[in-house]
Amino acid sequence: MSHPQTHFAQTRFHGPSVLRDRRRTFARVGVKAQLKQLRATGRYDCFDLRWQPVYDEHRVKWPAPAPVFWDSDVAKWLEGACYLLHDAYDPEVDAAVRHVAGLIRGAQHPDGYLNVYFSVVKPGERWTNIRDQHELYNAGHLIEAALAHSRYYKTDFLLRVVERYVRHIRTVIGPGPGQKHAYPGHPEIELALLRLHAATGSEDAYALARYFVEERGNPRGQDGLHFYDWERRQRGDSPWKRPDAYPTADDHWYNQCHAPILEQPTVEGHAVRAMYLLTGVADLLCLDKLGVRAYHDDEDNSNRNDGECRAVTTATTTKAKKDRYFEALTRLWDDMVDKKMYLTGGIGACWGWEGFGRDYFLPAGSDEGGCYNETCASIGVVLLAERLLHLDLDARYADVLELCLYNNVLTGASLDGTAFTYVNQLASSDDQPSRREDWFEVSCCPPNLMRLFGCLGGYLWDYGAGDGNSSGEEDGGSSANAAFVNVHLYTTAVVTFEVGGGEGQGGQTVALEQKSDWPWDGNVSFHLKAPSSVETTIRLRIPGWAKGDYTLSPSPSSTTTTTPTTTTLEKGYLTLPPSYTAAHPSFTLRVGGFAPRHVAPHPYTGQRTLALARGPLVYCAEDADNPWAPPHFRDVLVSAASPVAEEARALRLRVDAARWDCSGKTGDAAVREPGQVEAEVEVEDRYVALRTEAWVRDMSAWRAKRAGAGPGLSVSEGGDGDGVVDGEKKELVLIPYYLRANRGGKGHMRVGLLRK
Amino acid sequence: MSHPQTHFAQTRFHGPSVLRDRRRTFARVGVKAQLKQLRATGRYDCFDLRWQPVYDEHRVKWPAPAPVFWDSDVAKWLEGACYLLHDAYDPEVDAAVRHVAGLIRGAQHPDGYLNVYFSVVKPGERWTNIRDQHELYNAGHLIEAALAHSRYYKTDFLLRVVERYVRHIRTVIGPGPGQKHAYPGHPEIELALLRLHAATGSEDAYALARYFVEERGNPRGQDGLHFYDWERRQRGDSPWKRPDAYPTADDHWYNQCHAPILEQPTVEGHAVRAMYLLTGVADLLCLDKLGVRAYHDDEDNSNRNDGECRAVTTATTTKAKKDRYFEALTRLWDDMVDKKMYLTGGIGACWGWEGFGRDYFLPAGSDEGGCYNETCASIGVVLLAERLLHLDLDARYADVLELCLYNNVLTGASLDGTAFTYVNQLASSDDQPSRREDWFEVSCCPPNLMRLFGCLGGYLWDYGAGDGNSSGEEDGGSSANAAFVNVHLYTTAVVTFEVGGGEGQGGQTVALEQKSDWPWDGNVSFHLKAPSSVETTIRLRIPGWAKGDYTLSPSPSSTTTTTPTTTTLEKGYLTLPPSYTAAHPSFTLRVGGFAPRHVAPHPYTGQRTLALARGPLVYCAEDADNPWAPPHFRDVLVSAASPVAEEARALRLRVDAARWDCSGKTGDAAVREPGQVEAEVEVEDRYVALRTEAWVRDMSAWRAKRAGAGPGLSVSEGGDGDGVVDGEKKELVLIPYYLRANRGGKGHMRVGLLRK
Repeated sequence: MSHPQTHFAQTRFHGPSVLRDRRRTFARVGVKAQLKQLRATGRYDCFDLRWQPVYDEHRVKWPAPAPVFWDSDVAKWLEGACYLLHDAYDPEVDAAVRHVAGLIRGAQHPDGYLNVYFSVVKPGERWTNIRDQHELYNAGHLIEAALAHSRYYKTDFLLRVVERYVRHIRTVIGPGPGQKHAYPGHPEIELALLRLHAATGSEDAYALARYFVEERGNPRGQDGLHFYDWERRQRGDSPWKRPDAYPTADDHWYNQCHAPILEQPTVEGHAVRAMYLLTGVADLLCLDKLGVRAYHDDEDNSNRNDGECRAVTTATTTKAKKDRYFEALTRLWDDMVDKKMYLTGGIGACWGWEGFGRDYFLPAGSDEGGCYNETCASIGVVLLAERLLHLDLDARYADVLELCLYNNVLTGASLDGTAFTYVNQLASSDDQPSRREDWFEVSCCPPNLMRLFGCLGGYLWDYGAGDGNSSGEEDGGSSANAAFVNVHLYTTAVVTFEVGGGEGQGGQTVALEQKSDWPWDGNVSFHLKAPSSVETTIRLRIPGWAKGDYTLSPSPSSTTTTTPTTTTLEKGYLTLPPSYTAAHPSFTLRVGGFAPRHVAPHPYTGQRTLALARGPLVYCAEDADNPWAPPHFRDVLVSAASPVAEEARALRLRVDAARWDCSGKTGDAAVREPGQVEAEVEVEDRYVALRTEAWVRDMSAWRAKRAGAGPGLSVSEGGDGDGVVDGEKKELVLIPYYLRANRGGKGHMRVGLLRK
Repeated sequence: MSHPQTHFAQTRFHGPSVLRDRRRTFARVGVKAQLKQLRATGRYDCFDLRWQPVYDEHRVKWPAPAPVFWDSDVAKWLEGACYLLHDAYDPEVDAAVRHVAGLIRGAQHPDGYLNVYFSVVKPGERWTNIRDQHELYNAGHLIEAALAHSRYYKTDFLLRVVERYVRHIRTVIGPGPGQKHAYPGHPEIELALLRLHAATGSEDAYALARYFVEERGNPRGQDGLHFYDWERRQRGDSPWKRPDAYPTADDHWYNQCHAPILEQPTVEGHAVRAMYLLTGVADLLCLDKLGVRAYHDDEDNSNRNDGECRAVTTATTTKAKKDRYFEALTRLWDDMVDKKMYLTGGIGACWGWEGFGRDYFLPAGSDEGGCYNETCASIGVVLLAERLLHLDLDARYADVLELCLYNNVLTGASLDGTAFTYVNQLASSDDQPSRREDWFEVSCCPPNLMRLFGCLGGYLWDYGAGDGNSSGEEDGGSSANAAFVNVHLYTTAVVTFEVGGGEGQGGQTVALEQKSDWPWDGNVSFHLKAPSSVETTIRLRIPGWAKGDYTLSPSPSSTTTTTPTTTTLEKGYLTLPPSYTAAHPSFTLRVGGFAPRHVAPHPYTGQRTLALARGPLVYCAEDADNPWAPPHFRDVLVSAASPVAEEARALRLRVDAARWDCSGKTGDAAVREPGQVEAEVEVEDRYVALRTEAWVRDMSAWRAKRAGAGPGLSVSEGGDGDGVVDGEKKELVLIPYYLRANRGGKGHMRVGLLRK
């Protein structure tokens, strides 16, 4: 099992692209802008375990005051920084990473425990509220930070620390009689533990991750009670003392533990938690698929305390259990994608619990009753989709991965990499203008974006030895004469990897280069470099929105070798067999679907709106381009019959050093060499804007008509629509959603406009 | 100041009508069906202060387990029963009222305190959670019960009890240094106290009601804290221990005390609480208008503990303060009616807090994210509208009163009077089928309906001495030679009242009769009987939905008297001056607007739906008439261009005595005389059904088209609507919304259908 976080460095973005440019901005500016925030808020030094005044604020929020998450903020920054240092060395960042890593190591207790809040603020309350207080979540991010640190610095300096911590956790939590039968309220550690296991072979890590997945939602986990109920009683908390984010006091779906994972019919609760949890489950399946580990079904239910569960047959095969988990994964994925996902790839309609609402409840913004779409939640979709593509190569996962990446994720950072959104609505309102912030009290999203972009190369493709098409354990990945690359995302990049060769032995090098102007244009030229002895299979994703419009050049039929060559299209991937790639190491894929198209939300959302899309991008209207528009574009109508014109544009921004210059704040400015500071960074984005016609709904005519008609009623006679007159015709300019809130204005923005 | 609850008996429903028939069903069946439930659940005897097993249920809900409301359930039943006994004597009901009244009187503590839950279950916790535990709410309903009891039985048996209780409350709560500066979490007692004051002159009642209104929302009410925050600290409760109904732990808008009433810009929170509170405020203004009491502005802010407030000028005149309260009332009314009310007069889009959502957030049902529309909330609108009509005779209040009464209120009871709805959605779903229940754990709605229909005659018109048009205190109502009747609702009824004559002296009798087939037909014939010495002014409401289409016969110009007669239409009321009524004691009003019309929710709801209405009635489609329809009519389209046909129908139901025969349950069956039990009651409703054409949306075509288009997307090309094909054409039958869920079926129902 390989993870993007592990193999991203094998991919190099060797030419300009939206993805390369954004990644570079994180490396040049974003990583330091966030470091500046870590320093300004006290997070940077928090692992020194000294008291900070912010801990003392009297209105700390129960159960999770912001410092409860600090460990993860620091860890995620450290993780992302290590990814970015790989090909963009910066002495200031390097020094900061070393400083923080030293503090983390120094903060570990003799017994292995490691957590700032429960060392400094509430030292007596370790593991007393596993549901809400994020100890395991923080531990997960520390593990991921340690893995990134280990890979970049070639040291086990932090790895040893987290291994000790994992051993400690395993003494506290587990199926044993003296242990807490617990699992994290905010999943994340599952996927981190499985990465740790893959990297180090740690059995503790594997066992703990598997325990968390299998124990989750056990209705009688501890002393006959749901673990979280048991835990609450231990604390002596009233059942009516519940966090603000919990819709009601007596359910567990906020944390995805209302039922065991296998029995959950629908995806529910906090969206980020759901995505991280399912990514962990998928990782577990990926590991098993690769033969690293098989389920032992005779252990099934061993930690269930009720007689009934013990009676469950143990005849289920390992395969059947894996199938059941895979079924659960795809069931929950489909439920999410088909009924609970926005046009932009956003998930989480409900502010209250930052999570999923009812089927098709997808209001465009606060004015319509919701829309949260946390940046981290769509990052979670990207993680999950990538894992699912290992289990089931189907473009429906990759289409959603790309949709999220280019829309709800990419919009989470400003073009200059120094400002962020947490919530990503599809329509602004007076309460929620379309704006960014430098930082947040709970600041999960900014470093999450940074670490995703840091290892982004790992998400472009899946590759390795063999033909990549074996479903059983026999595909051990050791085939010396076969290689595969499954291309999920198009951009300009080159991946280089080795096949064959045992442990410690050099293998044969395979390199695949792609060049394109994606997402603006669908022409992608490839060049494969592989020894002639390696039979290379390449699979190219054909996006669903291309509607089958694609061309491969040279065409397979023009192949001049004597063996016949046919490409096959299966589940959205076009397979180029070794016979093709050998004959045509350079080839071009043209993907259609780049003409602007009107899209609409599911009819069951009840929204008769139209949005514009082009390739993988969803567009929005902003007041910066359309100063004539009424507030928040609420009264703007468009028609699918209107022509749409394209306009090539560029946006250039100068990023003042004050936005990210954090020198001198902690005395380590000395690490910076003269001339290393860029006084000003310029960032640029070329993009395609769209122009179409629009109408302004004349509400005054409606008001006059409704007079006396009754509460909220418009009287409709003779089929005149809403009784609203379509007013003046205007030219409407739209830009990619990801680019919103970069050009000033009043923060008025809308994706879906009323359908005329 | 006169209240419908006081003067309803002056109105007699002397011929058949929807209102008369429903009221009669409550008297014949409903009052006993509810008595049966009171007995079956333990409420009937709860004032005996004996322990009941239900108190012991371990999962009692904090902060308000159902028995906390029991006092009010019993009191409301008693109040409604007394109204109904007035003209439909029933020995069993009479005996039960006497039994309960005796228990209530016996339950009073020596100090005047009177509450079942805090006498039996939590005797040590009186007045410790005034926000949530309904002591003042229960007290209010006991006061209303005592007033009804006193009026029917001509005794102060219960009146003395509540007067003592009010005196006790006044010792506990008030502006004094040793008192709680409290006000009810669930308003209701304000309006009850003001009625008590009007009936008995109780100064304690007046002072307490005014204190509740003026103190409410004081940010520093007690020891510098908001009273509810102070109270919580006294209990030692965590600020994070909050009731399930509260959206977040740290605000007060659920209870309408986030700010003083005068400063509240919008109507917020729990809908029933908001309506009862504003009704109390309106009552306060009505009292003052009639000169019974004037505000003493030098007392202003006397109970505010902060120096700033004391600095407020006391130069404000009484009039200015009244104006400010009137402004607040109308501001909140308009906010509600214009932005937060459903087509059916329902209010409260949000389940979480049974209350108001954001502006124009009016989902049709659970599937769309909400819709609560509690029956009691619309009853509250009826109460408030009636009070506002005293302050400002404007048909916009009466239109909403009628809309609520005939739609969201009337639908709350089954045609046979024995089953009820609590929630009144505009579209059913699998979670919330359109069904009724015999009773509820929290059963506020059934007895509330009963008491509203019990005193319904009081809501038809406002009347008295004078011309009814004086805005100042000079209109003392003692004019012997003038009378007025402002007619708000049309039906078949006669009102008889006296004008002139001092205390104890007989006056002159005025009687106005109206006959109509409302709400099916707009022809209303009137007959006035008044001595020639009494100049009678009659004002007739012209509903907004009539769009100005009305005719008065004889026309004013045909008046043969020598003085010229002109009628005037102002704010929706047509004034017939004494010259007209003297010349034409019999006259007819024809109101138009009874042709079926299409109505639609406000465009900002984002719902492109059409509903059918006719006169004051909103219609719905049920599966009972339309078995071909897909689930919950979600895929049914209609067109405003389609013709709509009418069909006269009748629905007859036999109500088995088992539904309401509660004899023998408590041994008082002996009060029933042989032959007094009706073995079976037959109820009937004649109504107009509507027929129109509809189309079934073909989702399979949509699904095929969207394949691969992306999450939840339909691709729209060439303006083909949602990309959904309008399928087969069908005939759609609609019935009045109030009649839904009376004829079996699957409980599929919808008001607003997709607009083709």
